[in-house]
Parts: sequence; structure tokens; C-alpha cells
Amino acid sequence: MHIDPLRTVAKEMKFLTGNIRQLLGSGHPALDRVAKYYTQAEGKHVRPLIVLLMSRATALCPKNESAPASTHDSINSSISPLDILSDANPSSPLSSYSSEPEFTESDILPSQRRLAEITELIHTASLLHDDVVDHSVSRRGSPSANFEFGNKMAVLAGDFLLGRASVALARLRNAEVIELLATVIANLVEGEFMQLKNTARDERNPTYSEEIFNYYLQKTYLKTASLISKSCRAAALLGRADPVTVDAAYAYGRNLGLAFQLVDDILDYTQSGKSLGKPAGADLELGLATAPLLFAWKTTPELGSLVGRKFEQEGDIQRARELVIKSSGIEQTRALAEDYSQRAISALDTFPNSEAKDGLVDMAMKTLKRQK
Amino acid sequence: MHIDPLRTVAKEMKFLTGNIRQLLGSGHPALDRVAKYYTQAEGKHVRPLIVLLMSRATALCPKNESAPASTHDSINSSISPLDILSDANPSSPLSSYSSEPEFTESDILPSQRRLAEITELIHTASLLHDDVVDHSVSRRGSPSANFEFGNKMAVLAGDFLLGRASVALARLRNAEVIELLATVIANLVEGEFMQLKNTARDERNPTYSEEIFNYYLQKTYLKTASLISKSCRAAALLGRADPVTVDAAYAYGRNLGLAFQLVDDILDYTQSGKSLGKPAGADLELGLATAPLLFAWKTTPELGSLVGRKFEQEGDIQRARELVIKSSGIEQTRALAEDYSQRAISALDTFPNSEAKDGLVDMAMKTLKRQK
Repeated sequence: MHIDPLRTVAKEMKFLTGNIRQLLGSGHPALDRVAKYYTQAEGKHVRPLIVLLMSRATALCPKNESAPASTHDSINSSISPLDILSDANPSSPLSSYSSEPEFTESDILPSQRRLAEITELIHTASLLHDDVVDHSVSRRGSPSANFEFGNKMAVLAGDFLLGRASVALARLRNAEVIELLATVIANLVEGEFMQLKNTARDERNPTYSEEIFNYYLQKTYLKTASLISKSCRAAALLGRADPVTVDAAYAYGRNLGLAFQLVDDILDYTQSGKSLGKPAGADLELGLATAPLLFAWKTTPELGSLVGRKFEQEGDIQRARELVIKSSGIEQTRALAEDYSQRAISALDTFPNSEAKDGLVDMAMKTLKRQK
Repeated sequence: MHIDPLRTVAKEMKFLTGNIRQLLGSGHPALDRVAKYYTQAEGKHVRPLIVLLMSRATALCPKNESAPASTHDSINSSISPLDILSDANPSSPLSSYSSEPEFTESDILPSQRRLAEITELIHTASLLHDDVVDHSVSRRGSPSANFEFGNKMAVLAGDFLLGRASVALARLRNAEVIELLATVIANLVEGEFMQLKNTARDERNPTYSEEIFNYYLQKTYLKTASLISKSCRAAALLGRADPVTVDAAYAYGRNLGLAFQLVDDILDYTQSGKSLGKPAGADLELGLATAPLLFAWKTTPELGSLVGRKFEQEGDIQRARELVIKSSGIEQTRALAEDYSQRAISALDTFPNSEAKDGLVDMAMKTLKRQK
């Protein structure tokens, strides 16, 4: 039987974008326009989808009886009585917190739905800033925000999303969850920075080493898997799951995140720009050596000099592509992605059977098949 | 008797920069360099100084007996057991949390000292991003970070500071304090945005209205006073002060913050670039109409057309300066700043006498006298 993971949480997903846009209301039309720009686009909302599925799947798992009774799970938490000046926006987002969303009966808690929205806000903020840093001109088949509104507005809008995400997070009133997601924000920057530094490698003609691959994996964890893994852990924590389940949720997210990025790195070699909605071969253009190239480099020392000069000479990018495609780099990357995907699925072994669990398994399999 | 506010918390201030730099250790030298750049400069550390004074002054005030007993005030809070990959940095900042600083006996709590550091991190992050947004080339007499390291690194470093500030904040394990400071992050962006939008005013020849002045005050609260006021409130909350004291701490910070910015706006008209450590008249260059000009505009309608075209025509800036200086705009701004400063001092009426209270009063008076 084939499960459509989206169907399992279709009702929740339906309200996601609306709720996110409510969280982002600032009362300043120009700021709203940029802040909501990437939420309008035909995003896949993979991260919130996973958080919602994980919330539902872990609802059936054993509870942590020693955990403090869920102090709030209405997110109608008290609003500090600040003076009028501090309430910046007429269409205050505060109201969106105190009016509870549309469901009252659900195994997915209001806090878990809010968490799903927060993961999307953090992800979108990082896209806004990464596109400034990478000078990207397009995203998902449309002009990038920095291209459309300028760097200035893209930086500000990213900060604004982070600010609103932090406030929403604080209102979850769960210290461990707040710390997890705050760590994600720091991780995303470190990951982006490791990637940037990588491209600025000084050596002229480096030789391949395991260290280089480990650096790449570390970067990939920080930049991609940290958000997914820590928000899966957070979803389980909010549901008061027992420690075994919390760790399993984390392991699922971590392995899925790594598989996801490995596939992304493959697509940059195998897909056309048109089908990706962003320029193909963008990684090499940015001077980035990702998994397919690193595997190829192992048996093709010639790649070292190209890496060393960041593919900057005329013809370097073309040559690197050829060498990678001729090698088994793409196959090896795919094998590694399959391995991580399998590990993600195995992490769910202790979960009782459910449609949501099937949805998570399906997400892990679909990650390998996606074409963009 | 004259109190030097710095002396009152000199020991705590001595360790501030060191602790901040520990919080910012990433294990990536290039990132460290940018992240620590504005902490090396001869900063005045006004915000942490105020937080420390407020912590000490409120320690003598009545306690909130109904508040939950200070759950932690060691900040040695538990570190989530994440896998090795998530621990990005060799010189992990985690260690700086679990080893407690140098004092063990003090009326200033470890969490309040950490709060002082967090306020400086948030402030510094906002400087980094504001300088990118405003294309500033200098700050405190040195090249700005964006000028020295490029926009890319300045954006990343600002994000990194915010990320680390969020983690440190989460570890304070005080929900109300976390929410207050998270709100500050959102406020700073809204304030910067309001300022940006202000400069992009569409009308050709606007007439002065009270609404324009209120908009300016709102912007000033969000961009400058929000951080000071909410961190004063947070300091009192961490010390378990009673609600009257908490509100008084907030009122002090809010009025001081507004006074501070009004004086800043005056200095932009009266000081030379050399003594400011940044270009003088920078506000007009950016198209900004601040309090002195707004007061002048009330009686000098000619300023409307200059505001309308954002001082962009040859000679506009010079003309605007002349009109402002000829008017009573600067005097009126000074009177308003004095009023706010006085209100800040009055907010402390209920506090028992102490050296720290005298320090806070002195800070409010010094704000009016500062020359840069």
C-alpha cells in the first residue's frame, strides 16, 4: 500500500502557510512583502511536513513519565504587559498566538504545529541570507529575494524572520526545545561559514584525504541536517516521548538530512538548471567540491589542482564535471545517500506501526528519488 | 559625592570582554576574527554596564515571593547529549558555560552577568547588519566590519552572534527573560526597517505632523530603547524582584534609551566626524530626519521639500543643517532628552539607596553630557 505522507497531515499542512504568514505580519507592507516572498513561492515545506509526521508518529510511543507534566500546551502563554510603544505593529502577531488554530482534537499538539512553522521560518531566514552571501540570482524558478529587493532588504527580512521565530520559540515555554532550535541557528551559520572557508582553501594543489571528506560531512550536518534532526528531537520532546524515542527521532532526522543533501549534491551534476529552478552546476561555480567530486578525487588526483584554484580558470568547471561523471563519484554518493536513508528508516524500528510512521519511511525513500 | 558608575561594577566589567569572546569561540579563525572585531574595538559597553548596575541595585529591592524559586542560578544547565557531529567546534563554547566565572560571592547573579554579555552580543550583531544595510565605512574610528571583511562576512558574523546569543539566552532557562530578549531581536529589525522606510518616503513635499514625530519616537524605541529597557526588565526578573521593581527597571531603561538616542541625534549636528569616530552629518547623508530636524520643521516649512527628496540635491544637506541650527530644533531636542533622563531617574524612586542606584542615576545624567 502506498502512503502519501502529505495526506497523513494534510489538514495541518493546509493551515501552515497561513499561520506562518500570520506570524510574519509586521504592519509594514514593504517588509511583509520581502519577509513573505519565499513563503509564497511553491515551496515543498519538507521540514514542517517531517515535524508534523514525527509528532503524530511519536504520539503513539511510550511517554517520559518523569518529565514535568506538560506545563502549557496551549500556546496561549502570557504576554508580558509592555507599554504601548513596544507593540510595534498594528496587525500584531501577538493575536495569532492567543487565538488557537483550527483544530482542537488532534494527536498533534498546538506546540508541535507551532514548531513546524518555526522550522520553516528558520529555514527561510537562512535561504534569504545564504542567497545574499552567495550572490544567487534565482531560487525555485523565480528571482532570488536579494535580486528582487536588494541585499539590504534581504538581510533585514532574514533577521526579521529569525526574530519572529525566536519569539514564537520562546513562547513554547520548553527550555530544552528552545535551546535545541537556538543551537540550530548558530549551526546554520557555522555550516555556511565552513562552506565559504572551504572555497577559500589556500593550498595550490591539495591531495585528497579522509579529513576533507569529514569536513564536508560536518559542514553538511551543520548546514542541512542540524535543523531537521533537532526539530525532530524537539517534536518528540514536546510530545513528552521517552528518551529512547527522542533519540530515535533525532537519528531519523540526522540521517534523513544527510541523505537529502547528498542527493542535492548529485542533482547539481545530473539535472538541468530548468528542472532545478536554479542554475545547475551552481556548486562548481561557487568553487564548492561536494560529495560526487570528493569521491571522484580519490581516484582522480588531477582534480586536486582544480579544487586548489576553485575551478576558476577557463574550462575548469567543464573539466571537473567530465572527470566526476567519468568516475564513480555519483554512484558512490548515491550509495552513501541510500545508506543514510536506510539508517533513517531503521531509526524508527521501535515506533508502533501507524500511517504517520509509514509517511516518515516514505519520506526517506522519496528523498532518494527526487529530481529537484 | 561623585560616583563613577564603572567603579561600582568594575570587577564584573573586567571579565565582560573575555567572557564574550569565549562565547564567540567557533574554532574557525576567520569567523572568529570578524565576530570579535567589534568586541575588540574600544567600545563603551554601555548596555552591559547598565544591566550590571541594575542587577546590583535591584538586589536590594523587595522580592517576588510568588515567583517560582529560582530554578537554576548556576548557569551550568544540562547540555543535551547530541552526537559528535553536532558539536561543531573544537574550542566548544559549551565549556565556557559549564565552568563558572571568577566570582562566587556577589549580589550579581551568574545569570545576570550572562545577560549583560548577551545584551552586548545582540547589540554588536545589530551593528554588523546595520552597517551592511547602511553601507557604512567606519565605526568607532576604525573601518567598519563590512568595509574590512566584506558584506558577506559581516552578514554571517552578525548571524553567528545572534545564534550564540540565542543559545546563551536559552540556557538561562527563564521563559519570560528568553521571550523579552527574543522580542528585542525582532524589534531591532522593525526599527531599522522603519528608519529605512522613512528615508524612502514617497511624498514630494510633506508637511510636518505629530504623526511624523510619533513615527520617529516609535522607531527610536524599537531601534535603541527596546534592548536597554527589556534587558533592564530581564535583569530585575532574574533577580526575582517584585513586579513594581520590574516595571521600574523597565521604565528606567526605556527613558534612558530614548534620551540616549536623542543626544545621539543632536551630536550628529553638533560634533565633527573626528570626535565621533564616524562621519558627522551621517543622518542627513542617509536621508534621515531626526528629532532636531523634526522640531525645526515645525516652524520652518521649507524643510518639507528637502525631507521629501531625502536631501539628495546638491546643497540640500548644507541647507538643512543651516535651517536646523538656526531654529530651536537642537534646544528642543535637548529639552526632550533632559525630560526622558529625568523620568529615568524618577523611575528609581522606590529603590533603596545604594552605590549601584547612584551609578544608574549618574548614567542618566552622563547621557546628556556625552560628546560622542
